Amino acid sequence: MQTSSLLESLMEALRCLPGVGPKSAQRMAFHLLQRDRNGGLNLATTLHQAMTAIGHCEDCRTFTEQARCAICANPRRQHSHQLCVVETPADIVAIEQTGQYSGRYFVLLGHLSPLDGIGPKDIGLDLLEKRLANEQIDEVILATNPTIEGEATANYIAEICDEYQTVATRIAHGVPIGGELEMVDGTTLSHSFIGRQKIEI
Amino acid sequence: MQTSSLLESLMEALRCLPGVGPKSAQRMAFHLLQRDRNGGLNLATTLHQAMTAIGHCEDCRTFTEQARCAICANPRRQHSHQLCVVETPADIVAIEQTGQYSGRYFVLLGHLSPLDGIGPKDIGLDLLEKRLANEQIDEVILATNPTIEGEATANYIAEICDEYQTVATRIAHGVPIGGELEMVDGTTLSHSFIGRQKIEI
Ligand SMILES: [Zn+2]
Ligand SMILES: [Zn+2]
Repeated sequence: MQTSSLLESLMEALRCLPGVGPKSAQRMAFHLLQRDRNGGLNLATTLHQAMTAIGHCEDCRTFTEQARCAICANPRRQHSHQLCVVETPADIVAIEQTGQYSGRYFVLLGHLSPLDGIGPKDIGLDLLEKRLANEQIDEVILATNPTIEGEATANYIAEICDEYQTVATRIAHGVPIGGELEMVDGTTLSHSFIGRQKIEI
Repeated sequence: MQTSSLLESLMEALRCLPGVGPKSAQRMAFHLLQRDRNGGLNLATTLHQAMTAIGHCEDCRTFTEQARCAICANPRRQHSHQLCVVETPADIVAIEQTGQYSGRYFVLLGHLSPLDGIGPKDIGLDLLEKRLANEQIDEVILATNPTIEGEATANYIAEICDEYQTVATRIAHGVPIGGELEMVDGTTLSHSFIGRQKIEI
């Protein structure tokens, strides 16, 4: 028997967080109540703001509360005329941490998956085509995950780039096959950027 | 460089949760934004309610949003005239899960620690004395942690019980010395309840 229904609701609500089971949820709830109510209140406010105000950048589709994200809005990120295509916003964080790249990004928010009904428009390729048509982009770096779906998506985008006479490169397979880009260490990711190859069609 | 300052604030705010470092905070933030905004909004609301509305039971000091917690308010929990003293609200959850105990609780919210300036009043022993004086309590079960401080606190309370001619028992040392009660498995905790001994002074 629980001593408080609101406490039970809190433990239940905490389980929306990935990796948080019943035991961790209990530990978190008691920790906040006993030792950090201000931290809990701050989390409540920030969480509400983030869930309601954060949308997608109109240029690169990553998360932002502005019309354009801080990277797209930064004129210095346009000097290289490079566009790096990734599957998720978390991949941007991983690539930024290598310090190897100073161009802009395009976030697919997924990958092509015909069996799940996920086609080119679902991963924003119509927007990507518009950018290839209207902006000066000298190189599209395909940094999708080194999985079967990620490779297929990279090849599909390389064909679009070819139509627009834009060079498409693939990050080198220094990254382990079958893994997720987000989990790769910085050194490996740096090497895979340096060793990227032009995709020949 | 981050793409959004609100996203950065969210990752920072999530770190008030125990066991959540920068990498987990990022994974949580992206998970909520990409896959579970409703879960995130529900967590924000519940967290705010819990942090502001949950106080302490006026009888046992555990967490509750009512004047008295669900256990203290339940008349069936008074039949045995037993009072189990624990250090934290989490210990109540652990003991309830054994199904071995049907009496009431008293939560110290800590233990005696003279070096840290934590004396009898800080762990509610004035309130406990009032209850010993005014209620029919036949047995006080001392279920403080099996640590040096927990043992010292149990002995101190046993002496108070003696003044009120109330039997004080200590849960058996089936629980591993030096550990935390909250982490003990249910079977061990059941055995330690069954094997409890009267404290001889
Ligand atoms: Zn952007
Ligand atoms: Zn109570």
